[in-house]
Amino acid sequence: MAAAVSRKLAPVPFTRVEVDDAFWAPRIEANRAATIPIAYRHLSETGRIDAWKLDWRKGKEPVPHPFWDSDVAKWIEAAAYSLAAHPDPELERRVDAVVDLIAAAQQPDGYLNIYFTVVAPERRFANLGMWHELYCAGHLIEAAVAHHQATGKRKLLDVVRRYADHIDSVFGPGKRDGCPGHPEIELALIKLYRATGERRYRELAGFFLDQRGARPSFFQREIERLDPEDSRLNRHFFGEGEGFRTEYCQDHLSVREQSDAVGHAVRAMYLYCAMADVAAETGDGALLRACKRLWRSVCERRMYVTGGIGPASHNEGFTADYDLPNASAYAETCAAIGLVFWNHRLLQLEGDGRYADAMERALYNGVASGVSLDGERFFYVNPLASRGDAHRQPWFACSCCPPNVARLVASFGQYVYSESSSEAWVHLYVQGKGELDLGGRRVVVEQRGRYPWKERVAIEVRPPRAEEFTLALRIPGWCRGARAKLGGRTLRLAPITRKGYARIRRRWHPGDRIELALPMPVERVEANPAVAADAGRVALQRGPLVYCLEEVDNGAHLDDLVLARNAKLGAKLDGNLLGGVVRIGGRARRADRAAWSGALYRFAGSRTKPATLKAVPYCAWDNRRAGEMLVWIREA
Amino acid sequence: MAAAVSRKLAPVPFTRVEVDDAFWAPRIEANRAATIPIAYRHLSETGRIDAWKLDWRKGKEPVPHPFWDSDVAKWIEAAAYSLAAHPDPELERRVDAVVDLIAAAQQPDGYLNIYFTVVAPERRFANLGMWHELYCAGHLIEAAVAHHQATGKRKLLDVVRRYADHIDSVFGPGKRDGCPGHPEIELALIKLYRATGERRYRELAGFFLDQRGARPSFFQREIERLDPEDSRLNRHFFGEGEGFRTEYCQDHLSVREQSDAVGHAVRAMYLYCAMADVAAETGDGALLRACKRLWRSVCERRMYVTGGIGPASHNEGFTADYDLPNASAYAETCAAIGLVFWNHRLLQLEGDGRYADAMERALYNGVASGVSLDGERFFYVNPLASRGDAHRQPWFACSCCPPNVARLVASFGQYVYSESSSEAWVHLYVQGKGELDLGGRRVVVEQRGRYPWKERVAIEVRPPRAEEFTLALRIPGWCRGARAKLGGRTLRLAPITRKGYARIRRRWHPGDRIELALPMPVERVEANPAVAADAGRVALQRGPLVYCLEEVDNGAHLDDLVLARNAKLGAKLDGNLLGGVVRIGGRARRADRAAWSGALYRFAGSRTKPATLKAVPYCAWDNRRAGEMLVWIREA
Repeated sequence: MAAAVSRKLAPVPFTRVEVDDAFWAPRIEANRAATIPIAYRHLSETGRIDAWKLDWRKGKEPVPHPFWDSDVAKWIEAAAYSLAAHPDPELERRVDAVVDLIAAAQQPDGYLNIYFTVVAPERRFANLGMWHELYCAGHLIEAAVAHHQATGKRKLLDVVRRYADHIDSVFGPGKRDGCPGHPEIELALIKLYRATGERRYRELAGFFLDQRGARPSFFQREIERLDPEDSRLNRHFFGEGEGFRTEYCQDHLSVREQSDAVGHAVRAMYLYCAMADVAAETGDGALLRACKRLWRSVCERRMYVTGGIGPASHNEGFTADYDLPNASAYAETCAAIGLVFWNHRLLQLEGDGRYADAMERALYNGVASGVSLDGERFFYVNPLASRGDAHRQPWFACSCCPPNVARLVASFGQYVYSESSSEAWVHLYVQGKGELDLGGRRVVVEQRGRYPWKERVAIEVRPPRAEEFTLALRIPGWCRGARAKLGGRTLRLAPITRKGYARIRRRWHPGDRIELALPMPVERVEANPAVAADAGRVALQRGPLVYCLEEVDNGAHLDDLVLARNAKLGAKLDGNLLGGVVRIGGRARRADRAAWSGALYRFAGSRTKPATLKAVPYCAWDNRRAGEMLVWIREA
Repeated sequence: MAAAVSRKLAPVPFTRVEVDDAFWAPRIEANRAATIPIAYRHLSETGRIDAWKLDWRKGKEPVPHPFWDSDVAKWIEAAAYSLAAHPDPELERRVDAVVDLIAAAQQPDGYLNIYFTVVAPERRFANLGMWHELYCAGHLIEAAVAHHQATGKRKLLDVVRRYADHIDSVFGPGKRDGCPGHPEIELALIKLYRATGERRYRELAGFFLDQRGARPSFFQREIERLDPEDSRLNRHFFGEGEGFRTEYCQDHLSVREQSDAVGHAVRAMYLYCAMADVAAETGDGALLRACKRLWRSVCERRMYVTGGIGPASHNEGFTADYDLPNASAYAETCAAIGLVFWNHRLLQLEGDGRYADAMERALYNGVASGVSLDGERFFYVNPLASRGDAHRQPWFACSCCPPNVARLVASFGQYVYSESSSEAWVHLYVQGKGELDLGGRRVVVEQRGRYPWKERVAIEVRPPRAEEFTLALRIPGWCRGARAKLGGRTLRLAPITRKGYARIRRRWHPGDRIELALPMPVERVEANPAVAADAGRVALQRGPLVYCLEEVDNGAHLDDLVLARNAKLGAKLDGNLLGGVVRIGGRARRADRAAWSGALYRFAGSRTKPATLKAVPYCAWDNRRAGEMLVWIREA
């Protein structure tokens, strides 16, 4: 087995992708026009912006929190992506002003964190397990790379380089050991390495990865050094002494030995991203193999049909195989975002459609559900069933999710295409165009179509002149019977499709057109029988979208509805519904509550009455009147 | 509406009932031969017997616990009942020896509790909310009344009278206020009143009842008087300050205002028993009306199909209407026993079959499940579904359930018949006989039949001479199409049946015979659609027995089994199975796990394979090889 890993593909960066489709373009616009300004307002009102002035003094409220820096960093990252696609001088000035504050807050030694500069300087790097210090550093680095990439400005990049150099002077072989309880800096250091070419950053990322699984655990040794009050959170999540648990932050085994997704789901995703990144840069086959084992654990045993992950609230994370309760699903928006990041990385390494399938599943369902259609309200937790008490909120005290979804939506373009010296890859079907660089040859790929609502996609390829290369078109895992025509002639897909991509190698002329048809019947999804929560139930899916029932369309008591196994289900584009969506309708039956007259049990033969059922995309739920919601519908 | 309550009926005491049936007689024998000796051994080995010698000194292990007295008292009660039906000189000597120890432990002022005499005398009556002091007193009183009733001996009765007098000298109007966090003494005081005619006991019971719902709550005032360490448990269960919660021990409203069953389920049942008792003795209509509202709450909205109650472990009690999860059901054995006690009391007051139905449901299912067929192992918690990790245990550190089930089984005879001056009531169909006293007339009612396995019951009535009275025969709520013959001639039941009892008023001659047929087809039970846990599922019931699937009969993954709506189900008496039970069999289908090959989701059309299904009575589960169990079976 080949030990070395080569990164087959590179994503086409968001700066070279235009998105003009029916699904994402309105979300990107709402993100720009609503979410990013709203996020700034909340950051500002809660003191997170001004805190960079470092003028906090004892007794002043609010007291900066260790994770504040990351909220601002994610906002800068989101704003930078947005500026690249949609110049906005006012926003640019606002970003620059925050960058100036951050730069001015940097300490002479390069250190840069509000809390550990003004509130508890004596605690610098004292509690890596729970205090989010290196996590904040990672987000600042990601923000800086994005800011540079989007605007060409170097100021923030130079600041974070100095900070990264400082961290590198503290941690590493022969220096301090340890790693962050919440991974993030590792993947950020790889981004910084790629942006600067400085190998030390890549090595430091690898060092942090390799700290996991040490025995005794770094985190356990850290607790022993801390005051009981300072390690209160650590002890809550990790336990202590004999009861010390290492799973919460994926410290149970060395990263190369890990096979089961455990612990806090966002921590897990960011760690796995860094594992894929380091594997890509160093050719470390053991890291990639661990990623692939973990992928099976997550995507084949521990993932909701929406791409949500991490069912439990107690650890915001993973539990056991097939434990996927619906009403109590935690499925944090940030975790689904992390799943996108990770699968996007594995996709570049492997060119395998299963990663694109998982990425698409999360993007169109469990990530898109995290923000309202108007960009103004957010889900932190994404249940798959609700009695009517789950609603998007304007903001959260722990505000990781809104700026995370903002940066993902603003940079959505980067997930659509990949490029290599001889291959143009289309992962997602999104109207708009990408400008690909195939070994120096500039090839524009333009898509037209109303995906995910309509099954037809027209793809025009425009190399500068006739050129031979491979166009790899994803045939989604959900699609049965995809068809294609090239220049009006039917293309037989089966012989050229491998690992979920139809690979069309030929001499392409400017203006060559592929007509792709991706049939989108309404499908009933079953879960593996081991998923107890879904026994006797089906989810509805059409194309990449998972559907749900809402009370506003179906009345209360959604679990009274029973879909007959052979009932016909129709799909119809409704331009007036939820900004224009395809809705699914059909006949069902429902329990006749009125016929029960207060009895708790009775012998069978209960009357049911006919009902109609109307399902809408899960990602668009809770945009109308509050009420119940249900993904997994009873079937009989 | 009539304010006054009259106790229509009186139970025929266990001393006048012989049980010789196929279901209870073997359980009574196992209780006598195994459970009662085992309980004594555990009480003895854990120091609970010797502790009555009051020779505990600081540093000695084990330290007596505040609730130890009640475990011994329940054992005396069980042993006394058993002695009445089955004389056993050795057991009688053992009981007498324990009674002697208890009598010797009584303090000069009448006080009687191990813990508060030798461990913490300064804490006497200091924490009624959580320290089980009056609860222990109640069980001693119940034991004494039973001991006197069964053996004619007065020693323990005299002891508890002195103790009751002491308690009465401490608590009451113009004396101390307060009531026990765990009700029990109230119903015991009514028993003592009935045994002695002393009205002060009845009044003290009423006083304790009336303390509930005071504002500020007695329990809240008590916490404020206690050391923080002494009120640790109180604060855990009740909260404190603004967060003080009164539901846990039914202190949220005055007893006459209560409507919803809340809090700890055993506490609730014992409280409601006392409410029914005081209503019966004082004619307090408001108390009875409260009982009837609470009955609807429990039996129409918060009871498992097995008669188990109290779904939650965190409070060992009630939660919300229709919240009846199966695998996590707490459904403590003691709570189902309490439900029997309470319904038995309401039945005497109202002569209404719905109370007998609930009593029978709990007796044959959720109570009988609490002990193994051999009487040697016990369930504290009675789930309605198990992944294979629930098993009866030889004993429990908190050992309330085993002696509670022992005293119930030993006194089972008392639930079969009631008597009044002109009516003979048959509540349960149990082979054997009862000697009823109808206003001085001694009437023997003898039953023959193999209930609950067989539908035919023969009832012979033997008054001393021809006498006019009413024979009230219960037509169980689960029974459709009951038939009867009197002296070989068909008796039309509909015109004479009221509130679940066929009332046959006539001049009865010695040897008159009723042949009753109670058809027992296999029934599928549905739960009210509001019970989310049971949606799309049915339970199987035949006669009074609820059935379940066990892994030993059906293989693993019981939730893969799906019963077709129209599938025929057969019933067969199997003399070799579980001591002789009727088993239910039929055809079903089950998910084909092998066909899934690791996928987590897939589009519908999953193959199922034929399967047979074999169900056994729930009460008899976990008597063979350990494994999964399921009551509510998927139906499609």
